[in-house]
Amino acid sequence: MVAINNLFAQIPDRIPAEISEILLKTHRLHVERIVSAGHATPAGRWYDQETHEWVLLLAGRAGLRFEGEAEVRVLEPGDYLNIPAHCRHRVEWTDPAQKTVWLALHYREPQGVS
Amino acid sequence: MVAINNLFAQIPDRIPAEISEILLKTHRLHVERIVSAGHATPAGRWYDQETHEWVLLLAGRAGLRFEGEAEVRVLEPGDYLNIPAHCRHRVEWTDPAQKTVWLALHYREPQGVS
Repeated sequence: MVAINNLFAQIPDRIPAEISEILLKTHRLHVERIVSAGHATPAGRWYDQETHEWVLLLAGRAGLRFEGEAEVRVLEPGDYLNIPAHCRHRVEWTDPAQKTVWLALHYREPQGVS
Repeated sequence: MVAINNLFAQIPDRIPAEISEILLKTHRLHVERIVSAGHATPAGRWYDQETHEWVLLLAGRAGLRFEGEAEVRVLEPGDYLNIPAHCRHRVEWTDPAQKTVWLALHYREPQGVS
């Protein structure tokens, strides 16, 4: 029987550290739910990932910075983007007043050819 | 420069036929946005897909039936499920009073082994 779960369920009231859970995992991809509550990437640190990441912000608000860009990109619910592997980026801030819920799809194959 | 788009943008007021758009496509997966407005799978028809499908309902409401199950499963915003390839299913109904927005991830590899 196919199980149905809810992305907004089982979010604790207090989130001392960012929560990350795998929702689906196969050989070449995984889908993750991330819940932030004012968390940010530590100062001076960048994500530099082996996998491509397609990311969707579902609730809350976040500021994302890409290396070499002056402006922080503000993400609102429904905003999605595709971050190629090794495209250095960091989360400058997430909304401290509410939970920020992300869906992240990490995948290994090159994008483009169908 | 990484493009940011919004999943709830560019939805027409009137949707005579279900809208399906590819948001990301690679060799082995694609991510699709589907917008329904009261649409359902035609009577007597089942989806029987070559690919696995991880699906998330983001807005609206839908009734999903799996072959061999008596009960229709009602999906609300945030509900997600993984439908294995060739698991026959159909959309019995979507809410006629609002848009139903789905995110569907179709992927080819077997689930399980990491």
